[in-house]
Amino acid sequence: MIADGTAVTREDVAAAARRIAGFVLRTPVLEVSPGLFVKLELLQHSGSFKVRGAFNRILSAGPLPDSGVIAASGGNHGLAVAYAARTLGVRAEIFVPEVTSPVKVAGLAALGAHVTQTGAIYAEAAEAAAKRAAETGALSVHAYDQPEVIAGQGTTGLEIMEQTGGVDSVLVAVGGGGFAAGITLGTGDAGGAGPRIVAVEPELIPTLNAALAAGEPVPVGVSGVGADALGASRIGGLAFGVLSGPRVRSVLVPDEAIVAARRTLWERHRVVAEHAGAAAYAALLSGAYRPEEGERVAVVVCGSNTDPAGL
Amino acid sequence: MIADGTAVTREDVAAAARRIAGFVLRTPVLEVSPGLFVKLELLQHSGSFKVRGAFNRILSAGPLPDSGVIAASGGNHGLAVAYAARTLGVRAEIFVPEVTSPVKVAGLAALGAHVTQTGAIYAEAAEAAAKRAAETGALSVHAYDQPEVIAGQGTTGLEIMEQTGGVDSVLVAVGGGGFAAGITLGTGDAGGAGPRIVAVEPELIPTLNAALAAGEPVPVGVSGVGADALGASRIGGLAFGVLSGPRVRSVLVPDEAIVAARRTLWERHRVVAEHAGAAAYAALLSGAYRPEEGERVAVVVCGSNTDPAGL
Repeated sequence: MIADGTAVTREDVAAAARRIAGFVLRTPVLEVSPGLFVKLELLQHSGSFKVRGAFNRILSAGPLPDSGVIAASGGNHGLAVAYAARTLGVRAEIFVPEVTSPVKVAGLAALGAHVTQTGAIYAEAAEAAAKRAAETGALSVHAYDQPEVIAGQGTTGLEIMEQTGGVDSVLVAVGGGGFAAGITLGTGDAGGAGPRIVAVEPELIPTLNAALAAGEPVPVGVSGVGADALGASRIGGLAFGVLSGPRVRSVLVPDEAIVAARRTLWERHRVVAEHAGAAAYAALLSGAYRPEEGERVAVVVCGSNTDPAGL
Repeated sequence: MIADGTAVTREDVAAAARRIAGFVLRTPVLEVSPGLFVKLELLQHSGSFKVRGAFNRILSAGPLPDSGVIAASGGNHGLAVAYAARTLGVRAEIFVPEVTSPVKVAGLAALGAHVTQTGAIYAEAAEAAAKRAAETGALSVHAYDQPEVIAGQGTTGLEIMEQTGGVDSVLVAVGGGGFAAGITLGTGDAGGAGPRIVAVEPELIPTLNAALAAGEPVPVGVSGVGADALGASRIGGLAFGVLSGPRVRSVLVPDEAIVAARRTLWERHRVVAEHAGAAAYAALLSGAYRPEEGERVAVVVCGSNTDPAGL
């Protein structure tokens, strides 16, 4: 188990992979053209990568109280915690902000979770969940800023390196930063060895970009098509510690590029992603990130909790 | 090259795999539960497995006339021939029946093919295409009943065995039978060695089932949700030669089971298949085929040329 407050390491990611094997899918990688790999993490249980961190956090915790687990989430993390709790036979209470899409709320209820919808943005739902956790003693599963969560998400990075035989760069979406930080650790080390991590954010929710400019996590506005899944109002502290390292490049994409990328993922590759799940691909498609000649690139498409009718 | 009229062999499938490598995707396999593998052939270029046979037929033919290639198709085969022709810089003329969905016709035009929509069902469009081919000298690429086409489709079977480490049964949809015949050859031999092939057809288009009952290919009615992609009015002669062998079990599913399977593929696995593409999964989900305890099963989901709004 990882002690709170300590840095997460690549060994923690490897331990997480052993712990959650059998509970999560080893999602496939599609080589859509020579040297361009799409990691289909949107096919993961519960429709996003978030189950990796959820299982790792819960399975690391030892015996749970009767109150079970509690989480606050823009939606995907809540679905993941609800899915993991149901799989493990544990009670789950999920707090979601009002911006959460009806598809995601219905999904939570279908998984047997107790849902409370409160607050305009993620941070307010998180505050309500923290208060409730203090009352009930339930195990809090954070959406991104816990070592076990980051280590769990990082197992995606281990798989990318194994499945592709190695890449030069990995494009990944950033909300609270847990996924990108985990992938940074899972594909190399925080110091400098390993592929470049292209951390992609919507222009309208630049949590990492603003933090890098300020030298520390700072609050940002939350709006646009990615808000229901990338709607953290500041980058996580643990994630920032990793993502401010030398391997990471911050890239912003406009909402129009995300919408176009989602459409192209369907038309060209028959993949139905949610907007946030298409953000990393948007950086490539729009030219916000331009690989060099011969660069081997992995793009993580990370969520599919969406209504396909919107295509 | 395979001489017309001779039986297709496993060696022909292996040769096809070498010939078309680099032109088709090695589509991923998802192990959705222990021992249950879903072959995501719907992520293939042009949205279905049909490009495998199209490339193998065209690349086997030697120099082509200026009139290029010609095909008749319920849609997916036409898209595949158009895609292959565009990739290889060859003219393509495609005949499709009137039942073909607007999505598919638009896709053909977008690929630069010359499209003629004629006849109520596939057989009538095929007749018109054959007449036209005799006039122009274009290379005819049959939707299922040519040795090179069957060998190309069979490369899916080779991949299934490699990617799963071997299975006991493979569930695959049958229209004209080229895909199922190819997979039978690609996973074992026609005689008896290799996994069971569960050949799944809609009750409303039982080309194989009726042929097995009659002892030879016979015409059947063509209707229901699978008609735009499984709408051959009789099983192909070459395919019947393979599919009447001891490894094959014929199974029928009602349209309601196909509709439910398509919906479940999205809800549970985030895969958007067309109805025909979901038919094999429908046999499993509805209990029309019940694997034994511990049986390792591969289900081929083979087409995605559909409007996701229909979900």
